[in-house]
Amino acid sequence: MGLLLVVNGGFILIAALVSYLYADGVVMEMFLAGIVGSMIGGVIMFLTKNHRKEIEKREGYMIVTFGWIFMSLVGTLPYIFTGAIPSFTNAFFETMSGYTTTGASILSDIESIPKGVLFWRSITHWIGGMGIIVLAIAILPLLGIGGMQLFAAEAPGPGGDKLHPRITDTAKRLWLIYVGYTIAETILLKIAGMSFFDAINHSLSTLSTGGFSTKNASMAYWNDQPIIQYIVIVFMFLAGTNFVLSYFAFKGKFSKIFNDEEFKAYSFFIFLFTAIAALLIYFRADVSISSIAHPMVWGEFESAFRHGLFQVLAIVTTTGFVSADYTLWTPFLTIFFFGLMFLGGSAGSTSGGIKVMRHLIMIRNGLLEFKRTLHPHAILPARYNKKAVPQPIVFNILGFFILYMLSFIIGTLVFSWLGLDFETALGGAASTLGNVGPALGDLGPVENYGNLPAAAKWWASFLMLIGRLELFTVLILFTPFFWRNR
Amino acid sequence: MGLLLVVNGGFILIAALVSYLYADGVVMEMFLAGIVGSMIGGVIMFLTKNHRKEIEKREGYMIVTFGWIFMSLVGTLPYIFTGAIPSFTNAFFETMSGYTTTGASILSDIESIPKGVLFWRSITHWIGGMGIIVLAIAILPLLGIGGMQLFAAEAPGPGGDKLHPRITDTAKRLWLIYVGYTIAETILLKIAGMSFFDAINHSLSTLSTGGFSTKNASMAYWNDQPIIQYIVIVFMFLAGTNFVLSYFAFKGKFSKIFNDEEFKAYSFFIFLFTAIAALLIYFRADVSISSIAHPMVWGEFESAFRHGLFQVLAIVTTTGFVSADYTLWTPFLTIFFFGLMFLGGSAGSTSGGIKVMRHLIMIRNGLLEFKRTLHPHAILPARYNKKAVPQPIVFNILGFFILYMLSFIIGTLVFSWLGLDFETALGGAASTLGNVGPALGDLGPVENYGNLPAAAKWWASFLMLIGRLELFTVLILFTPFFWRNR
Repeated sequence: MGLLLVVNGGFILIAALVSYLYADGVVMEMFLAGIVGSMIGGVIMFLTKNHRKEIEKREGYMIVTFGWIFMSLVGTLPYIFTGAIPSFTNAFFETMSGYTTTGASILSDIESIPKGVLFWRSITHWIGGMGIIVLAIAILPLLGIGGMQLFAAEAPGPGGDKLHPRITDTAKRLWLIYVGYTIAETILLKIAGMSFFDAINHSLSTLSTGGFSTKNASMAYWNDQPIIQYIVIVFMFLAGTNFVLSYFAFKGKFSKIFNDEEFKAYSFFIFLFTAIAALLIYFRADVSISSIAHPMVWGEFESAFRHGLFQVLAIVTTTGFVSADYTLWTPFLTIFFFGLMFLGGSAGSTSGGIKVMRHLIMIRNGLLEFKRTLHPHAILPARYNKKAVPQPIVFNILGFFILYMLSFIIGTLVFSWLGLDFETALGGAASTLGNVGPALGDLGPVENYGNLPAAAKWWASFLMLIGRLELFTVLILFTPFFWRNR
Repeated sequence: MGLLLVVNGGFILIAALVSYLYADGVVMEMFLAGIVGSMIGGVIMFLTKNHRKEIEKREGYMIVTFGWIFMSLVGTLPYIFTGAIPSFTNAFFETMSGYTTTGASILSDIESIPKGVLFWRSITHWIGGMGIIVLAIAILPLLGIGGMQLFAAEAPGPGGDKLHPRITDTAKRLWLIYVGYTIAETILLKIAGMSFFDAINHSLSTLSTGGFSTKNASMAYWNDQPIIQYIVIVFMFLAGTNFVLSYFAFKGKFSKIFNDEEFKAYSFFIFLFTAIAALLIYFRADVSISSIAHPMVWGEFESAFRHGLFQVLAIVTTTGFVSADYTLWTPFLTIFFFGLMFLGGSAGSTSGGIKVMRHLIMIRNGLLEFKRTLHPHAILPARYNKKAVPQPIVFNILGFFILYMLSFIIGTLVFSWLGLDFETALGGAASTLGNVGPALGDLGPVENYGNLPAAAKWWASFLMLIGRLELFTVLILFTPFFWRNR
């Protein structure tokens, strides 16, 4: 954890370099934040240097949870030192939103923030995305989190069978892809006409399925440059795909990709939901879909298709970029996008939410339940990627879903208790828990989280954290037996 | 099914007698409806008289589903013949709402309807409640519906182990209790000051956890007579309790009752939710809770307690009576009551929804999932009433919950598609699926379902039906393998 914070401090120093290059006037503050951030990491390393290296399973849960919280605490330094976000509550919310790759922001005028700080903001997403890849490959399966074992079984390379802090080779390979994609998107966006600064920031946000933008209007700023939006669409799609499949693609093993049931379902869902959204936008939209930024010619199918696809991907992959305000389309589409917040991308991607693999197994098991009702003595296991899914894992996935819905209900009730209206409370809970970003009502795509009461910001931070860490990792710390019989 | 319709026709004739006694001017029409209704039953009996008596499991699902639909078709006759509800869509909705004990109404001026027709309306609830008791005791466990086996194991008397149309002795005993409670409530309500007609109608509605009232203001009509509301509170509580426990109470076996985990959880939930609601109404309500009917002295704790308790019971037991408009209390309470629509009463009661037993097993299994995560090799079955629940049944219950949530989501999307706003669509789906009655927004406690578009009324009827028949019974008919390999 100490090492993590030192590295994190290094990233702050890179952001300080950006401050220097763009002469945004906060170089010294950013530099100081980087030094202090690294020093905190150094102190932790020093204090724990004599500890044994073997980590127990229980400690695994704590390290992951507290690691994310510590990072979010230290990550506030650039905001606070530069005065970009003076309030600690706001700074913590923004950092947690960054590391959890949610992309919910308390900023109302993003464009007035110094460039170095904005870069830092995007970097928190990117670090969070890296963290999630390690978690998905190396840590969550060992901690026994809802079905992630299934995904890990598919991962290439030597899978670690003991819990140790060394990053596995697999994770390193996937990071390489992550870095490669980020560079590729940056170059493509730059060629398509974005400034270099915007290009790199949006690439960091896209690959991590985060959603922070450097523009107040988010991606709607580029509504006149469809090519830019299409590039982001492609990379959102990739970021919501299992990174292991990208690895296979580079190895030329395309059959692995087209035989992957999660990938097929993910692609099908995107296709189906885009078709629905695009047709509704085209034929039934009662309000202009370009109400955020630039005006657009009406009745143009391309734009309906693009915005439909863009928003479906933005919500399903939990990126949360905004090309248009989906709550202004039709009342049906509002509820439709609300529902999509519960889908999530693929396991082994940087996306949040419930994830396609789990839905797939739940749907199959649900259909089998009908058969089991009719033939109570038949043994009918759910199948996934041509293998029977062991019953404990199906159990685990069903348990995860119920816990997710329970967290959503309690999340909504607390938001409502804190004064949010019906639509805002429901949307806010779904969006923060799923690490999406934009929600409904007062937290809709063109709004921000800045006007929430402070308690609601802390609650939202909590929901983002438990959603990002697949619920069990954090919530197990609240069970009495976790602390018993040590 | 034919016999059922003949009996049903007999009940219409009883309603015709009520028409005669109260001289409401529709005696002949009601009489005719009774005759035609019985005759349809007779024709079905004649046509099927040579069929074998053994019924297969598959036929069981069809008989239950189509039985409910046939009843609802024939049950429209009194509404249509008397002209009380001239539209077939409306009449079918009202009848389905009756037999499913939902209590959602399309009538805006209930008090203008002839007394015989109103009595018929309450009778549909009561017949539906009787049907549910038979289903729960004798049929659903054999059809293997989500956890009902667990409940059936607790039922007294000789449990039928073969699927046959004869009503078991157990069901007869419970019917006796059902009839006895109805008579007792009628007498108490009459003594407390209700007219005899109102007393019997509300008793029929209460014991079946239906919710149809003879007054436009529902139970808020008696806001000045707390004793009447308290009587209804007691019988709502009993109607939401497992009728088997009432049987044990009359046998003097009180230990069975106090050891029943579902009863304890049900009582605890009622206590907890009433405390929350009452305190909020008392301290935080921003709108007068008596806005429906009579004015009430403010700051009076008794009324806050009474309305809190009344509405918690009305929603949890899925009765749906209205003593006050809960959507006018505080925004939090609106979402709170919306959440309660997913709870449901006890298994073996006449209430709808998910039901406490299933929640209990889901919560326990969810907590165990944490333990299983920590100790993946330990065998940790969920326990219920001191016994380990077999894994297939836990599976079944988890499957039921997921199917319930899926039905709710699709229900909401369709309502939204048909033009209902966000809050109305969500509330309407939760309320019809859970057989509650009042919902939110345009379908709130002081509104009615009359203004819905026709398609939405049919959709609501469908949701009421699948909710009442515990989803599997109806939805299995839509699976391809049900019709295969006959």
